[in-house]
Amino acid sequence: MTTNALSTAISQLSRFPGIGERTASRMIYWLLRQEPETAIAIGTALCELPTTVKRCKRCFTLCSTDLCKICANPKRTSEIICVVERPQDIDTIETTGEFNGTYHVLDGALSPLEGIGPDQLRIRELLRRLQSKEVKEVLVACDPDTEGDATAMYLATLIKPLDVKVTRLAHGIAVGTELEYANKSSVMRALANRHEL
Amino acid sequence: MTTNALSTAISQLSRFPGIGERTASRMIYWLLRQEPETAIAIGTALCELPTTVKRCKRCFTLCSTDLCKICANPKRTSEIICVVERPQDIDTIETTGEFNGTYHVLDGALSPLEGIGPDQLRIRELLRRLQSKEVKEVLVACDPDTEGDATAMYLATLIKPLDVKVTRLAHGIAVGTELEYANKSSVMRALANRHEL
Repeated sequence: MTTNALSTAISQLSRFPGIGERTASRMIYWLLRQEPETAIAIGTALCELPTTVKRCKRCFTLCSTDLCKICANPKRTSEIICVVERPQDIDTIETTGEFNGTYHVLDGALSPLEGIGPDQLRIRELLRRLQSKEVKEVLVACDPDTEGDATAMYLATLIKPLDVKVTRLAHGIAVGTELEYANKSSVMRALANRHEL
Repeated sequence: MTTNALSTAISQLSRFPGIGERTASRMIYWLLRQEPETAIAIGTALCELPTTVKRCKRCFTLCSTDLCKICANPKRTSEIICVVERPQDIDTIETTGEFNGTYHVLDGALSPLEGIGPDQLRIRELLRRLQSKEVKEVLVACDPDTEGDATAMYLATLIKPLDVKVTRLAHGIAVGTELEYANKSSVMRALANRHEL
């Protein structure tokens, strides 16, 4: 039976993208079969999110202090900044252990259709970081889609005149993919970016 | 970047069945891009659940008052009680508008394998309701699976001696299903429960 509190909880949970009303109600009914502490623990963790999760003052990733662990780490070189669209993209690059620079989170990519222009991204803050003259390279790790391509091009035109190298992650056929099953766009990139052996 | 608050929120959300760590982190990152009010609204709704959602004293469905709307409605007959496994099953039967009795939520079905015996279900409370002598029929609407079948049989042996009719929802080929595509168990039930025209 739907009570007010029940339907409120269901409609609140279904605000999450990908969680429909049916899934949400299954989740809530499960929650009601658990100890009250479970609902309170999950609810409290969500309530606390906006106050406990901050943005790094320098790179704008999510963190719990003023500077994120990477920006605060003196062992990381400030010569190269890797520009990503989202905080979680940093994790993907960090898992390789191959990158020793710092990051910069744009918070999206240029998308005129969605009304996202340069002012909606943290581009001004990136340019300010380049003023220190320590930075020698900006590695653009935006997604390989129209918005990511546009953002990379835009950043290149802005940053190159500052005498800073602008590079981009290589896109091509994913390692482990057989050529037969590679998607068309990846093969197109692989052809365009072919290199001499 | 994973902060403590972030990973706490992700691990809390992934306690829900069907929500893996990946889905949970996608949900949390989405939440962090919304206004702080969103996280607080969703979190508060979950925190409040255990205190605002109560059980109906008579039928044990979820409600916000002592008696649920159905039990409190004088127009519903107390001659027939429909026994369901879960509160949400009531909604399914209510949508037909064809049932005018009251309900009784068992909170599960007999399952020796999962350690659920008669004492774990609200069977004692059901028998107490039958003492009033008003009840003429108990309609068992347990699921058509092994546990539901066992529960229905068990209830029948308990209740029949009290001079109360025990019936069960009909199971067979679902309306709208072509015979060709009906599953074996449904066809078996349909054969066993065939009726004369």
